[in-house]
Order: sequence, then C-alpha cells, then structure tokens
Amino acid sequence: MEEIFIPIWGVNKASKGGIIYGDYLQLDKIVSAQVLQSEVKGNKIHDEHLFIVTHQAYELWFKQILFELDSVRHLFISEHVRDERNMLKVNNRIHRIVMIFKLLVDQFAVLETMTALDFFDFREYLAPASGFQSLQFRILENKIGVPDNLRVPYNRRHYRDNFKGHESEMLLATEQEPTLLKLVEEWLERTPGLEVDGFNFWERLEINIFDGLNLEKEKIEKMEDSEDKEEMMAELVKQKELFTSLFDEKRHDHLLSKGERRLSYKALQGALMINFYREEPRFQVPFQLLTSLMDIDTLMTKWRYNHVCMVHRMIGSKAGTGGSSGYHYLRSTVSDRYKVFVDLFNLATFLVPRHWVPKLNPTIHTFLYMAECCDSSYCSSEDSD
Amino acid sequence: MEEIFIPIWGVNKASKGGIIYGDYLQLDKIVSAQVLQSEVKGNKIHDEHLFIVTHQAYELWFKQILFELDSVRHLFISEHVRDERNMLKVNNRIHRIVMIFKLLVDQFAVLETMTALDFFDFREYLAPASGFQSLQFRILENKIGVPDNLRVPYNRRHYRDNFKGHESEMLLATEQEPTLLKLVEEWLERTPGLEVDGFNFWERLEINIFDGLNLEKEKIEKMEDSEDKEEMMAELVKQKELFTSLFDEKRHDHLLSKGERRLSYKALQGALMINFYREEPRFQVPFQLLTSLMDIDTLMTKWRYNHVCMVHRMIGSKAGTGGSSGYHYLRSTVSDRYKVFVDLFNLATFLVPRHWVPKLNPTIHTFLYMAECCDSSYCSSEDSD
Amino acid sequence: MEEIFIPIWGVNKASKGGIIYGDYLQLDKIVSAQVLQSEVKGNKIHDEHLFIVTHQAYELWFKQILFELDSVRHLFISEHVRDERNMLKVNNRIHRIVMIFKLLVDQFAVLETMTALDFFDFREYLAPASGFQSLQFRILENKIGVPDNLRVPYNRRHYRDNFKGHESEMLLATEQEPTLLKLVEEWLERTPGLEVDGFNFWERLEINIFDGLNLEKEKIEKMEDSEDKEEMMAELVKQKELFTSLFDEKRHDHLLSKGERRLSYKALQGALMINFYREEPRFQVPFQLLTSLMDIDTLMTKWRYNHVCMVHRMIGSKAGTGGSSGYHYLRSTVSDRYKVFVDLFNLATFLVPRHWVPKLNPTIHTFLYMAECCDSSYCSSEDSD
Amino acid sequence: MEEIFIPIWGVNKASKGGIIYGDYLQLDKIVSAQVLQSEVKGNKIHDEHLFIVTHQAYELWFKQILFELDSVRHLFISEHVRDERNMLKVNNRIHRIVMIFKLLVDQFAVLETMTALDFFDFREYLAPASGFQSLQFRILENKIGVPDNLRVPYNRRHYRDNFKGHESEMLLATEQEPTLLKLVEEWLERTPGLEVDGFNFWERLEINIFDGLNLEKEKIEKMEDSEDKEEMMAELVKQKELFTSLFDEKRHDHLLSKGERRLSYKALQGALMINFYREEPRFQVPFQLLTSLMDIDTLMTKWRYNHVCMVHRMIGSKAGTGGSSGYHYLRSTVSDRYKVFVDLFNLATFLVPRHWVPKLNPTIHTFLYMAECCDSSYCSSEDSD
Repeated sequence: MEEIFIPIWGVNKASKGGIIYGDYLQLDKIVSAQVLQSEVKGNKIHDEHLFIVTHQAYELWFKQILFELDSVRHLFISEHVRDERNMLKVNNRIHRIVMIFKLLVDQFAVLETMTALDFFDFREYLAPASGFQSLQFRILENKIGVPDNLRVPYNRRHYRDNFKGHESEMLLATEQEPTLLKLVEEWLERTPGLEVDGFNFWERLEINIFDGLNLEKEKIEKMEDSEDKEEMMAELVKQKELFTSLFDEKRHDHLLSKGERRLSYKALQGALMINFYREEPRFQVPFQLLTSLMDIDTLMTKWRYNHVCMVHRMIGSKAGTGGSSGYHYLRSTVSDRYKVFVDLFNLATFLVPRHWVPKLNPTIHTFLYMAECCDSSYCSSEDSD
Repeated sequence: MEEIFIPIWGVNKASKGGIIYGDYLQLDKIVSAQVLQSEVKGNKIHDEHLFIVTHQAYELWFKQILFELDSVRHLFISEHVRDERNMLKVNNRIHRIVMIFKLLVDQFAVLETMTALDFFDFREYLAPASGFQSLQFRILENKIGVPDNLRVPYNRRHYRDNFKGHESEMLLATEQEPTLLKLVEEWLERTPGLEVDGFNFWERLEINIFDGLNLEKEKIEKMEDSEDKEEMMAELVKQKELFTSLFDEKRHDHLLSKGERRLSYKALQGALMINFYREEPRFQVPFQLLTSLMDIDTLMTKWRYNHVCMVHRMIGSKAGTGGSSGYHYLRSTVSDRYKVFVDLFNLATFLVPRHWVPKLNPTIHTFLYMAECCDSSYCSSEDSD
Repeated sequence: MEEIFIPIWGVNKASKGGIIYGDYLQLDKIVSAQVLQSEVKGNKIHDEHLFIVTHQAYELWFKQILFELDSVRHLFISEHVRDERNMLKVNNRIHRIVMIFKLLVDQFAVLETMTALDFFDFREYLAPASGFQSLQFRILENKIGVPDNLRVPYNRRHYRDNFKGHESEMLLATEQEPTLLKLVEEWLERTPGLEVDGFNFWERLEINIFDGLNLEKEKIEKMEDSEDKEEMMAELVKQKELFTSLFDEKRHDHLLSKGERRLSYKALQGALMINFYREEPRFQVPFQLLTSLMDIDTLMTKWRYNHVCMVHRMIGSKAGTGGSSGYHYLRSTVSDRYKVFVDLFNLATFLVPRHWVPKLNPTIHTFLYMAECCDSSYCSSEDSD
Repeated sequence: MEEIFIPIWGVNKASKGGIIYGDYLQLDKIVSAQVLQSEVKGNKIHDEHLFIVTHQAYELWFKQILFELDSVRHLFISEHVRDERNMLKVNNRIHRIVMIFKLLVDQFAVLETMTALDFFDFREYLAPASGFQSLQFRILENKIGVPDNLRVPYNRRHYRDNFKGHESEMLLATEQEPTLLKLVEEWLERTPGLEVDGFNFWERLEINIFDGLNLEKEKIEKMEDSEDKEEMMAELVKQKELFTSLFDEKRHDHLLSKGERRLSYKALQGALMINFYREEPRFQVPFQLLTSLMDIDTLMTKWRYNHVCMVHRMIGSKAGTGGSSGYHYLRSTVSDRYKVFVDLFNLATFLVPRHWVPKLNPTIHTFLYMAECCDSSYCSSEDSD
C-alpha cells in the first residue's frame, strides 16, 4: 500500500477521520494469531513459527481464490455472461486464480528451508491436526468440480468425516451448488454455431474428417507395397477408430459415467469449436478462458505434487511398518481423476489439419464478429460487480 | 520434445528418412560453442563455463524475442491488424515476449551462484569483450522504440561506436524502421469512437470532466469555512490544472519534444478510450495488449535492475578511483527514459469516476460490439502467418 | 556481461588485440542454429521457432549441469574431498545444479505459451525426432545414478536403442563410470565416528533406541487399561518393528537388491550420523550437501512432472486408440524409482528424540571440531580446480 | 500440513484431546479479517479484497522475518556464536529470510492482476491509510540496520511521525537496540587471523599488495614507449591510489561518517579475510553468511523496485501538478543508502590475484581447521534455541 493512496477525487472524504493502515488490515488479528503448541507445552521449538505462518498464508490465499471463484460462478449463474461484456471480467478473475496458484506452488520453497529434523522436534505437538482438515481447500475442490465419487479414499474414511458437524454440512452444501465445471459446461453448450438447424458445426466436422481420412486411404492404397505402406495403413485405421469414437455419443456417455470425461457431449463440441475458430473476434476471449481453466487444473496438480515432495522429505515414505502412509495417499491424488477440466486437455487428441475444419459461411462469420447487443441498460459504463 | 512427436496425420511423411533430435536442434553447434578464454590462456577457471553458457542462453532468448517482435511488427505494418482476427495473434506473441523476459529476470539467480572471487579469477581474460557489444539487445531496444536521443551516454561514446562497421549499420537501419511504439501509436490513432464527426470521445470527455469538477467546486463552496474546506479547495485547483494540461495539445507536444511523452496526442486519446471502455467486446483484447506492453517495459527495467545488482556484487561500485564506473552507468539506465510505453503508465494519473465517462450511445455501442467483417478471403480458417 | 569486465590487473593483457563479445560467445553458431523444418518443407509455422529455441536452451543448461557434475565427480574420485577445504566447492557446485534445475522447471512457462493447436501445425515435420534422443539428458541421469534396471521401459525398447551407434556406446560408458551416488556413498562410508573400534555410532544408537522404546513400554504398561493404552501399545510395536528392520543388515541388502534402497548399509549410517550431529562444525557443510542432493532429486522429478503436464496439454493422454502413449510413459517416470537419493528422504522415517541420540564423548567431540590438516602444499591459497 | 502429522513418538500425547487444524492456525481470526471499506461505504468494489489479502500476506511474512531476525540477533548478542556449532543455525535462519524475500518479490505478480482502473474504483476509501504506516516494515529496516540519518525524507516529515504514540516509541526503541549490522560487525572484528601479534593478516596483505604493484610497475617501465605502456601506467597509478585508500584508516572513518561505509575498519578486514580464505573449513559457513547478507540487501532493494513499478502502474508518476509524488519518493529509496551491507558488495573492488594473498603459516592454518571446543555442556546434542 506504501503510498498507493494519494489522489482523492473531488471531496477527500476520509482525510481527517479516516482509517489507518493497521486497522484497515486488522493486523491486530493477523499478527497475533501465531501460538506455538510447542511453547504451550513447555518446549518452544523455533521452526514451528514458520510452519504456522506458512499455513496461514496458504489459508489467506485460499480465501482469495474462493472469493474470485464465487464471483465468477455468480457471473455465470446470473447469466451475466450472456452479456459478453462480462467475459473480460470472468477471464481476468480466472487468470488471477492462476497467478495465486503459481505463488502457492512457489511458496513451498520457503517451507522447504525447514528440515525433517526441525519438523520432528515439534510434530508430536500438532496431532491430530492435519491438512485434511483444511475446510477451505475442500470447499475449493468442490466448487471447482472435484466430485465426491472420484476422490481417493484415505484410511477408508469419507473425506467429510474429517470435519466437525457444521463444517461437514457446509461441505455437503458446496457439493450441491453448481460447480465451475457445470457452469462452464452450460456456457459451452450455448456456443454459437452448434445449432443443428444453423451452421451445424458438429455434422460438418464429422463429414470433413471422414472425407479427409478416405482421401488419405485412397492415396495410401495407390502406393506400392512396402513396410511403410503397411505402417501408414495401420495408422490410418487407428485414426478412423479414434474419430469414430469421437462422434459416438453413447461412447461419450459411457466415458462420462466412468469419470473419464466430465463435460457433456454438446459442451465438448463447443470447446472444440472454440479451439478451431479461436481467432474469430468473439471466440478470442473464450479461448483464453479455456486455456486458463487448464492452467488451474495443471497448477492444482503441481501444487499437490510439490506437496508430496515436501512430505516425502519431512516424514519419509513409510508411516510405520503397516497401514497406508500419508505420503502414498497424497501421491495418489496427483492424478487425472482430480483434473476437473481433463476434457480440455484431451481435445489435443482430436485436432485435425486446418483444411479439414469446416469453412465459415458469411452468416456464421458475421455472427462470430458480432457480440449480441445486450440490454441497453448495460450501455452505460456503470459496473455491476 | 521428449515424446511430443507422435500422432502423424494420414501419411507419416517423415517416419523413415526423418530427422533426429540432435540434428534438428543443431546440437553440434550449440554444445560445442563453449571455449573458455582462461583455458586458452593456460589457466582454466571453472566458473567461466557458467559465464559463457548463461550469456549464450540470454542471446538465444533475445533471438526468440526478436523473432516474435518482428512478426508482430509485420502484422501491424501489413495492416493485418485491420482484420481483428489477428489481434489474438498479436496479443499472444507480445505475451510470449513478456513470459520470456520473466524467465530472463529469474535467470540471474543462476549466475549469482558465482561469487565476486570466482569472477575475479577470469575476468581479465575477457577484456575488452563487454555486454555493450550485445548486438541483439541493442536491436531489441531499437525495435521496441528506445530512441537514440534518450539513451544515457557511456564514457562519452555513441552507443553505436561500440560495434564493428556492418553491425553499426544494422543498428542504424533498425533505428530507421518503424518501431513497435510507432506501430502501436498508429493503431491507437484509429481507435473507433475518436472520430470528431462521430462519437467524438475526446470532446465529450473534456466536457464531462469539467462539469464534474465544477459540481465539486460548488459543493465545497457551500461548506462552512474550515481547514478541511481549504484543503479540498486546494486539491480541486490541482485537479483542474492537471486536466487542463491533459486537454492542452500544445503542452502535449512540448512534453513529446522533451521525451516525457512518447505517443501522439491522438494515440493517447485512443489509449484512454480503450481503458475506459475495456469491457466492450471489441476492446477486451486491445486492453490486454496495452497491459502487456506495460509488462514488457516493466520487465525490461526489472532486468536492467537485476543486472545492476549483480554487477554491484561482482565488481563493486567503483571502477578504480576515477572515471565513471560500469555500475553507475547501468544504474542510470534503470530509468523512465528507457520506458517506451511510459504514457500508458501515466494514464493512471488521468482516471476519473465512472459516471464522468461519456455514456455510449446506441450507435457507438453496437459498433463496439462488432468487429468489421474483413475481406471474405479471410473467412476460411487458413492461417497466413 | 554488459560491463562486468573492467578493472584489469597490473598488465591489461587483452586491451588492444582482445576478444569481443560476439566472438567470445560464438554467437555466429548459437543464433544461426534455428532451422524450421516447417519452413524447409515449405509451410513455415511461426511457433516452431519457439519450440527449437526452448529445446536448445534446455540443452545448453544440460551441458552446464554435466560440466558441474563432472567437476564434482572428479573432486570425489581424486579424493580431493579428503581435504575438507574442497567441501565448499563441492557444495557450491551441487547447489548450482539445483539452481539450474529450478530455472529449467520455470522455463516450461515459456513453452506453455504455445497451444496444442499451434503445436499441431508443425509436429508432423519433426518425426521421428524425439526428446528420447536427448543424449545429454540420458548421460545426466546415468552420471547421477539412475540405473539401467530401474528405468521404465518404453515400447519394449531398451533406452540405449534410441541412439546411434557411437552415442549408444557413450551411454554405456557413462553407465560404467562411478556415479555421483556411488561417490557420495563412499564418502559417507568414511564419516568420522562410524569406526567400530572408535565412537561406534551405530551400536550406541541401537542401544539407545531400544532402551528408549523399552522405557516407553514400561510406562504404557503401568497405565490403566483403556482404548488409548491399546493404541499406544500397538504404535509401540510398530516402532519396534521399524527399528528392528533398520538395524537388520540382511533386510537392508534385500531392499538394496530390489532397488528400494540405493546406499550401502554403512553409508546409510553415515548419513544418519551427519543428520543427528549436523551442527558440529565439521558436519555443517556435509549436512548442506545431503540437503542439496535431495533438492536435485526433487527438482528432477518436478521437471519430469512439469513435462508430463505440458505433454498432456499438447497431445492429450491418448496416442491413438491402441499402444502405450507418450503421456503415460512419461507419467510413469515421475516415480521414486528415479529418485537416486531416495534413502536420504527416507531417513525421516528413522528420526528419534534428541535425548536418544548418543552423546558425543570429548574425543569424538574434539574430532568433529577439527578438520584433518591436509598436505601442507594446500596451505597456500592456490586453487587447483 | 495435509498429513504431515503422523508418527507420534512413544506416547501419543495429543491423540484424543488434541488440537485440530483450524483452531491451531486460528483461522477464525485469519479468514475473517477482510473488511472492504468500499463495502462499508456502500459501494463494494470486487478488487479491494485482493488488495487486503495481499497486504495481509505481506504482514504475515514480515512477522516471520522479524521472528527469524530476532532469533539471529539473540544468538549473536548472547555470544552463542562463539560456539561455532551455532553458525549453522544463524546461517539457515538468514537464508530463510532470503527465501521469504524472494517470495515477497514474486508476490507482486498477484497484485499486478489488478489494473489501475480497478484500483481507482476504491482507492479513495483507503485514505489516509498508507504503507508508510507498516510498523513491521519499519521495525524490520531498523533491526537490520537502516539508520535514521540515511532515510530519504518524505514530505519533510520524520518517518516516525507517521505513527501513533506507542508505535513511534517502539520504533525509537528498535533504533536503539543492536542492529544485525552492528552484531555482524562485532563478530567480524573477532575473525581469527586479524591479531596484530598473531598472523596479522592486514599488515601482510598491505605488504604483498604494494610489493605486487611495484613489481608490475617495474615490468611496465621496461616496456618500450607506446600508447599501451602509457595506458597501463595510468591504470597502475589508479590501482595504487585505490589500495592506498584501502589501507588508510582515516579515510575509512571519513567514509563511515558520510554513510558510504557502514562497517568498522577492523570488521572490513575480517570480511576481506573470510573472502580470501573462504575454503578453509572454519570460514566456509561464515563465507556463506556474508553472501546471504548481501542477498538480503539485494532482495530488499528488488522488493522496493518492484513496488515502485507497481505504483507507477497504479497511480502514474505524478500525484497532481505540484508536490512530490509517492512514486518519486519510493524511487529514491531504491538506493545504495538503503543497502545495509554495502561494504560487502564493495569488497569486490579490492580483490587481488591469488598469489598476492598472504600464505597461511602452519599455525594459522591449523587454527582455521579447528573450531574452538566449546564448554563441554554443549557436547550433548541438546538444543538450546
């Protein structure tokens, strides 16, 4: 804040009776909240202070992430995103979450200045406190869209059972709210150009792809017999299978039921469409959004993986001679099961040469150049958060 | 690259006679280019290897930055940006330059593992080689828009005189090409909404601001006499002066001539307009672009400052008992004189309350929702780089 | 380098006929080594340039890591480390490798500015080039100590079969050289205090631990029957098993043969001793070294994991409809099998309360305060690299 | 914390009635301390939440830095560092401060996701709160050793006058405590080898340097007359002046009085001695410490510079048409005046060829291999913080 405060507009409303820095930030609470259990128990261990501050910093940032996440979900829920003016806001806030997660990954470097020996000296005083009990982190996972049934179980307990009654209820409630995944899905389903009675992107794409593959097949068949030819034909067969599966809605639903896909069939089509036509003015910001959603997934797994590395160093891989260890549990959460937007990554499997992508006709082209004009009440520059 | 190579489309064109990793990257050149001068002179010093590799890595990335910069300048020059489909490309490439500069700032951490003593052991062998002679870095500065007359002189020599004949000519040539600054300026001057016979943003803004300030004045005058009232009136007078100067084209040209402003009067208007209406669909990506241009400036000065810090550690602040030192020269380049897009930063001085911003009328509003449809030949998804 | 060159000592040996920046760094080679295969094949794709430069930067840094690694291995092999003056050098160079790996992890952020679609446009031209063919990376793994038999096989081929004849031979040769792991092992085996006829750390530790556990047992037995008591007794039994296994050399050798431990029994003892007495002057730098070795392992797996994340985004998780994919192969290398210094992490499992650690007697205590005085020829400040 | 809690030793002291995560971290305080002034004033602005959380995170980390700093100062004050076992602790804690500052520099990236326009919307509500009022940051500067008389004045007010009565007194108190600078100075003055009646490093060094320079002079005089010869002679004269000044205690005291040097004459000698003999076992960790102290200085100025860059973006460079701006004030604090350990940087000016460094005689050499054995009570492995 250090001097980012100056030019007051018109009336300097606060100048005399205004608020000062420490009160504004409630520093009395923030910097008095470090009570070392080792000290309470009569054996003050220096490094416990770092341990506490680091975790408090994590929780502060989790709060910020939740704040951004809720505002984005609100924008989606209230259909504000139908006014495309709000896409910049959605995009910026999702990007801010990305930047915070980057910081949180880097933040491990500070805690890593503590050695296993330093940690050993106070870890007994912490029991049974555990990061499992980070309510905000579980809420965060729920609100983004980690579903209950894909969570890795730990010691055969349901994750909610690690929490007290009212916390457990809060968690249950967040499971039932629309997740970011769900809201993005609905938005993708509305992608202009998907209309069956309009541009009908999906059917056009299917036709182009199979035409393309058939043309390839004819070319290969004209080649003289050789090992090369065989390989290319084998590869072609694979490609055909791959795309046959893409256009098979039943197969999609099967993968959905197993948790290997997470978006609806229609939303997947929208995502692919935005990818192919990302340079059209109306798709530029949506395309950025899809990229940022993958960034969140990637950074959350990087966070998990950095966490695993630190735990390995702090307590080793074995939690005694029997039972599953914290280390191995955490390791198992660094998994694609926890990637909420896994479908966006897997789109890369379905890319095709540019000339196979259906050409826009003038109607749809114009369409993609023009955002719909919203309710005229938005035409002022007033901001409704 | 490690396995990012697989699915070949249709015909696997390269499978048999294809290129392999080491040849593709010309590693024979890259990893054989480390010749230690200390070793040549018969006194091999271990840390010189790091010194060489670090500088080579810098130059590799400078090459990449120049490549991106040239492609962006080309897009601007060839007026491709009139087709707004290209804005995503421009934006992404500028953003990539930002990401590279971030890496280059972080990269100092590696060279800082060398101590002043390690450096002392071989620095005599390097003379008179000097980073001043980094041709790519000077070209980079020129192409972005650091002008000759704002450069800090070093030892009373013109910067170009540190280079051999043909290199000096290359530098002169880049000074005469259109800089990124110039091209951005032209683009900003075309901002829709500036037209005097149209929405006429600038005049509307001027009216609104002075109306607003007068209203404030009336409010203050009605207050009872007090210290507060005096302060507020004094502040109001300052604000009036500030905005009077903003709308004074002659003053702008005066500041331009001194190098304190760098954009034309009209371009400044465009930049402010994009800031105020950044949420309009057509301005979302342009607004991101303006932000990225500031990022480049910021990161270049951070790079310079990190460089200064390292030099302080390596050779101290005094280069002997007389004469100007490298340290002090470098320090002087960490200056707003080297911030090419300084006007974009200083826009923050001219922000006003949202209700002072001219309301869009339906015409301009629709306009800002629709990119102009370009030549139909672009309506295919073909990419022309 | 930019001006880090000035004060020449005594005779300014190079001033006139000296070397200049561009020649010193052989920039003619470095910045001319970017040949786009897409351009060669007549379809220049912009982003291929980034792809090339990024990989070249990786290879440059791999070269630097190998240079540091070889110098450290040389210091160990030539027994220079028996002169404890060299420990600082060893430590600094290992730390430098750590800093380079940190940069390499961050460097992914630059390549991630390329999207799957950008990559798709040129990836066909690269085949069959593959990161598998990075000779330097494989040499690096070998020299640190990734053993042949713990490597994850890819497509049922031996990793060396991806290389040309003379490269394959180079790889075989590096497998047969003493690895960093082996050299550290030998150094740890010499840890002062392990001597059976001296301080005999290992036996003392075993006695103390089992005395300590028995005391705990007695305390628990005196408690009244309760669930708590049962739990504590069960926990104690586990602890006893854990430590019984620690002092069981046969079990150690069994784990060694399975690759679950990598250090000899004696070296493990040395590592534990350095951990427990890390504050003794002679053990301070060795303790730092053990920490840095874990850092290398951690960063290499983080590098692998970041790589996996990028590959997921670039090509998806499925390499067609059959066969193992690059993604899944890479994912399997993010494994403790590839952690060379896994034993150092797992030491955390064997920590004990400070009062169980054998007290130093005056002899060993003095000993740990005094480095052995080396050959007097070292008493000059001459540096022999 | 997530599962870093498990193996409890012997008696599981806390298992049943123990503390849980949220209570341990006092999250009720931490995550309830975000009150948006804009919301209080009836105009909730989304980005104020980020502004608050970011500053709270800064203050949390400042608290941690102060905690480490106080512990290090305590170790120095209580003369624990005479027991060299404590040097590892001192070094690690200083290094931890370095790592925290790195994080704080990176943390700006998160706040930079806020634009000047976003900030403008709520900055009026903050007045007169200002970062100047960060008590912890001023205490931090004082405890490290930024002296009152070298501070840049802001708006002609003494820095303490920005604080309330009891805070102002706290600041005054910290000015009067021994600073880190002072304590390091005393420790450096005790560097073994400086004793005039012993090794007498300083006199030996002076003799060697002037002998060396004289030898150079003779060599040059024997050369044939040429421009080269003249240049070399001129350079030699400068070197002589430089070193004459180094060995001139009065000149040192003069520079001290101007704030251009900060360490006593004797401490400077100690620092140079540690630099020249850094590889001697007893000097390895002290040398690391000197490096880390420079790191702190460097990172604090980088933090200041990053701050300046952000302020430039948020409020521009002009705070109205008259008066000094926050931007320019902050810029002036990015100065060597604020580098507490500036002498350690400037040592680089006084490096000499290795063969000019006085050779250790056997006595001092042995000495530098042996830490003094401390009071036998330390010979246990008990830790007294």
